[in-house]
Amino acid sequence: MKQAIVARTDIGMGQGKLAAQVAHASLSAYEKADDQLRSQWKQGGQKKVVLKGESERQLHELSAIADSEGIPNAVVRDAGHTQLEPGTVTTLAVGPAADDRVDAVTGELSLF
Amino acid sequence: MKQAIVARTDIGMGQGKLAAQVAHASLSAYEKADDQLRSQWKQGGQKKVVLKGESERQLHELSAIADSEGIPNAVVRDAGHTQLEPGTVTTLAVGPAADDRVDAVTGELSLF
Repeated sequence: MKQAIVARTDIGMGQGKLAAQVAHASLSAYEKADDQLRSQWKQGGQKKVVLKGESERQLHELSAIADSEGIPNAVVRDAGHTQLEPGTVTTLAVGPAADDRVDAVTGELSLF
Repeated sequence: MKQAIVARTDIGMGQGKLAAQVAHASLSAYEKADDQLRSQWKQGGQKKVVLKGESERQLHELSAIADSEGIPNAVVRDAGHTQLEPGTVTTLAVGPAADDRVDAVTGELSLF
């Protein structure tokens, strides 16, 4: 079980901003998962990987693939109080789900 | 309502590692909050700030203060598969709670 969080590298987020947006996506996708997925993932130490995304379009495409596979996922838009324009898409979380199911969506991406 | 996540700056986490550990702390503290705090925080856009911590000791001290104030909080230890020694304390999340209650614990720290 794992969760992959894809963060855009093309919008110049600082480290703290990046971390907050990753956390936002992680929690939002977690809330969409059913109880069994949630508890299995937490029992395994809530494994997470943070991956490099290249564009807003890519995040939406990966989200659509996850939707079609029935994998919980969430795209985050920043409120835009700091650093970014309001509504900027920043991150996508895929899972928690079985490792191979998550890899089928995000397996081509590099670790952040 | 907000949540503050304090991350250690003295252990050399890479950006992706930092983000994953911040997300881990965020979710763990969120799970300790009651339903009312959770829903209020989410309605406000799950506001988060990521702050600089200087040592394991500091994180434990801030956690103890949050405990004494009755504020949900969670200290995260890394599983140690990459970058860090197993069991290394990496992050502390404080809240969700009212802004002034969180600030009473972490208000002296700098933004990451």
